[in-house]
Amino acid sequence: MPKTRRSYKQLEFFFSPKSVAVIGASNEPNSIGYALLENFLKGGYCKGAGAACPNVFPVNPNHPEVQGKKSFASVKDIPEEIDLAVIAVPARFVPQVAKECCQKKVKAVIVISAGFAEVGEAELTRELQKVIDANPQTRFLGPNCFGVFVAETGMDTTFSARQKMVLPKAGNIAFMSQSGALGITILDWASTQEFGISKFISYGNAMDIDEADLLEYLANDEKTKVIVMYIEGVKEGRKFLRIAKNVHLKKPIVVLKGGVTEEAHKATISHTGSLAGSSEVYKALFKQTGMVQVSDLIEMFNVSKILEGVSVLPKGNRVQIITNGGGYGIITADQAVQKGLGLAQMEEKNREQLKKIFPKTVSLNNPMDLVADADKKRYATAVETALSDKNVDMVLVLILWNTPGIDDGIIDELVKLNKEAKKPMVVVSTGSDYTYQRRKALERGGVVTFSYPSVGATALKALWDYACAKQRLFKEK
Amino acid sequence: MPKTRRSYKQLEFFFSPKSVAVIGASNEPNSIGYALLENFLKGGYCKGAGAACPNVFPVNPNHPEVQGKKSFASVKDIPEEIDLAVIAVPARFVPQVAKECCQKKVKAVIVISAGFAEVGEAELTRELQKVIDANPQTRFLGPNCFGVFVAETGMDTTFSARQKMVLPKAGNIAFMSQSGALGITILDWASTQEFGISKFISYGNAMDIDEADLLEYLANDEKTKVIVMYIEGVKEGRKFLRIAKNVHLKKPIVVLKGGVTEEAHKATISHTGSLAGSSEVYKALFKQTGMVQVSDLIEMFNVSKILEGVSVLPKGNRVQIITNGGGYGIITADQAVQKGLGLAQMEEKNREQLKKIFPKTVSLNNPMDLVADADKKRYATAVETALSDKNVDMVLVLILWNTPGIDDGIIDELVKLNKEAKKPMVVVSTGSDYTYQRRKALERGGVVTFSYPSVGATALKALWDYACAKQRLFKEK
Repeated sequence: MPKTRRSYKQLEFFFSPKSVAVIGASNEPNSIGYALLENFLKGGYCKGAGAACPNVFPVNPNHPEVQGKKSFASVKDIPEEIDLAVIAVPARFVPQVAKECCQKKVKAVIVISAGFAEVGEAELTRELQKVIDANPQTRFLGPNCFGVFVAETGMDTTFSARQKMVLPKAGNIAFMSQSGALGITILDWASTQEFGISKFISYGNAMDIDEADLLEYLANDEKTKVIVMYIEGVKEGRKFLRIAKNVHLKKPIVVLKGGVTEEAHKATISHTGSLAGSSEVYKALFKQTGMVQVSDLIEMFNVSKILEGVSVLPKGNRVQIITNGGGYGIITADQAVQKGLGLAQMEEKNREQLKKIFPKTVSLNNPMDLVADADKKRYATAVETALSDKNVDMVLVLILWNTPGIDDGIIDELVKLNKEAKKPMVVVSTGSDYTYQRRKALERGGVVTFSYPSVGATALKALWDYACAKQRLFKEK
Repeated sequence: MPKTRRSYKQLEFFFSPKSVAVIGASNEPNSIGYALLENFLKGGYCKGAGAACPNVFPVNPNHPEVQGKKSFASVKDIPEEIDLAVIAVPARFVPQVAKECCQKKVKAVIVISAGFAEVGEAELTRELQKVIDANPQTRFLGPNCFGVFVAETGMDTTFSARQKMVLPKAGNIAFMSQSGALGITILDWASTQEFGISKFISYGNAMDIDEADLLEYLANDEKTKVIVMYIEGVKEGRKFLRIAKNVHLKKPIVVLKGGVTEEAHKATISHTGSLAGSSEVYKALFKQTGMVQVSDLIEMFNVSKILEGVSVLPKGNRVQIITNGGGYGIITADQAVQKGLGLAQMEEKNREQLKKIFPKTVSLNNPMDLVADADKKRYATAVETALSDKNVDMVLVLILWNTPGIDDGIIDELVKLNKEAKKPMVVVSTGSDYTYQRRKALERGGVVTFSYPSVGATALKALWDYACAKQRLFKEK
């Protein structure tokens, strides 16, 4: 098997193909073959200007036309070169169709069809593997996957019902998922959050392209600043370890591993057919690579958000909390300590100086409680001092927006301080729409914000973990 | 000190006073005394029909009128009986004003003013304590608090800026907070959630009425099904333990303790002046009372929500997960196990029966994966079987709403099954607005739903903990 001829550069054809065949495209509404072609044709990619706009060829031997486009009996009948073929035919036909794609010299093939190792179809799996192994010039994604989505161009090979979900905006977080449905859910949910997606890849059973190949590709993708992955197992441990370590030095990798408990782990085998090792093995693997392991969806995207949004890494784990609500500060301090951060002790000279300026109701401990009548000036003074304090590594600013002292002027003050800051700073604010709008204004100014103390603390801890891992990996190199 | 004359029944005057004096009411916009009176007058309580509508008397010696109402120099000058007085004058005047309230035989006094033990004002604190101790017929809430809010009637003594927050709808969750600002934030945030509030009480330094008194009152409040509390410390440990145990037998108590870490604990002392014990002491206290201890805001309300919404308690901790997304099921199973739940093993006969009906792509393990083409019928069959299975104590249904098989018909099916269920069942769905609307429809039908697997698992675990605690407390009685 000429494995060596494979390169991550071949993967480009999955994301910006000039010509696309949809094999199994259908006229039957509610079928996968229908939704696939419809989503693709209606997506932004096919409406893109000039060269970006691909030629699309339905393949279906039973109909002369599919959704108004001339249909071909086989991919081999298409008179043009094909960059990408998307296969959505019943599993038993997949090996033959895949072979035809290779004969046609298609560069990239997405196998949407399910019904292979994940349901115990060993024979069919072997047949498809044979085709894949014999044809290194053609790269395969899947089977049992949703394919790819590129937010910036609207390139979209997924088949989920568009009226039931919202696609997220373009941004710098790449997301790859072994599970297709979970991936789509996360895409939909991401649309409700304040961050954007660069590329989404559902890679299913990973019979050719695996998580390590995708990591390598995304490491070299300039639109991607943070890589997030949902995995249930890793195909080749050593290859993954080598690539992930290199990638993590360049950009952070966040991983949600399904089946970390032995009980849930058993279920992963029937899901994507992963012959996955024990959860302890994975924990060690992630630790060696320095990847940031998260445990649920909330954590996954909030950790990604801070890794994307904060441009400086912390030099230590000591956080200074500044608040205008005492109890709010205390539960945040609890969260910070429980997550593994330290509470900073500000320099004596700085505390003395603030003591002179602030009313005596202000508590200069950590959390620093500026109390309910704090205005933008008091906040700016406190945050600026903390950012310049030698004993402070990160600043977590809590704002309750419905106190009498706070007005919108604080937004500009914090945006300015954050731009000049040489250490990470985040804002946490809990509330309803009024509060949310202020958070959004801060985000537009480049400040990373969160809704809850626990989430903010988790995110800062992840940032510190990444800083440590990066330093260690750099030394090991 | 005639302490014995005090009773939780006196507290009624804080929640449905017929006559109210606002001491320190002001004509100065942006002052606390202004916002207090304005919020109160504009709130629903003063617009209530007939008897519910109270007489309101501003007290301010410097103005003949405040906000268009005749003002009195002292509460003693008011020609009517006063049920409730709200004090918002500078701290140094509070002992004198409090004494006048007692002379006037005011039944309930809320001291909004801050500046006592929490800032080290020992002398002023002693003076106020003397007044409180000498007058058991007058009950005091505060000082350093936001007072009360009753969602159903609109009775509202808080002073936060109404244009900056939304008050939550009426419901059955009572919330009491030692911290005023955090309390207000939670009120505002609660308005964005699918549950309602019965009574909100910010009790600050708790110089007279403490958390135990409030627990006793709320235990007897028929509008309240679940009691949620944010506390930094407990005034009298033994009294609290005795009352909390009794209350918890009647209705669940959820507690968020600020200062559970030693580091944050130090800050609580300066916040509400609590001479609180170590976090270990509290953990033991909560364990003895059986209270459900939560660690952050997200957990706090989701746990309250399940305790309010689910009408049957589980008989064991074995949960059956049913999903139409494999990975989604696996991360949920991980969460369930990590939170301390067991994964149920359904009876062999039930599995065999389902095996006959379902396509072979369906995985009958736990999580039970109904796969992407699952429709309402497959879901209904699976959920009904799990609900009747002897080895299943709770059912956690995961739904991805954007798969081709799912339509809105599933809502009625689940509502019906939930109504008849003899064990707890919840639905978890992650997504954007389309998904959220379906969750809301389920909630209207009485099904408890959550946005994230981690939250759903935490909530079910809390339900199980409450069931255990209740059983233990019952046996101890």
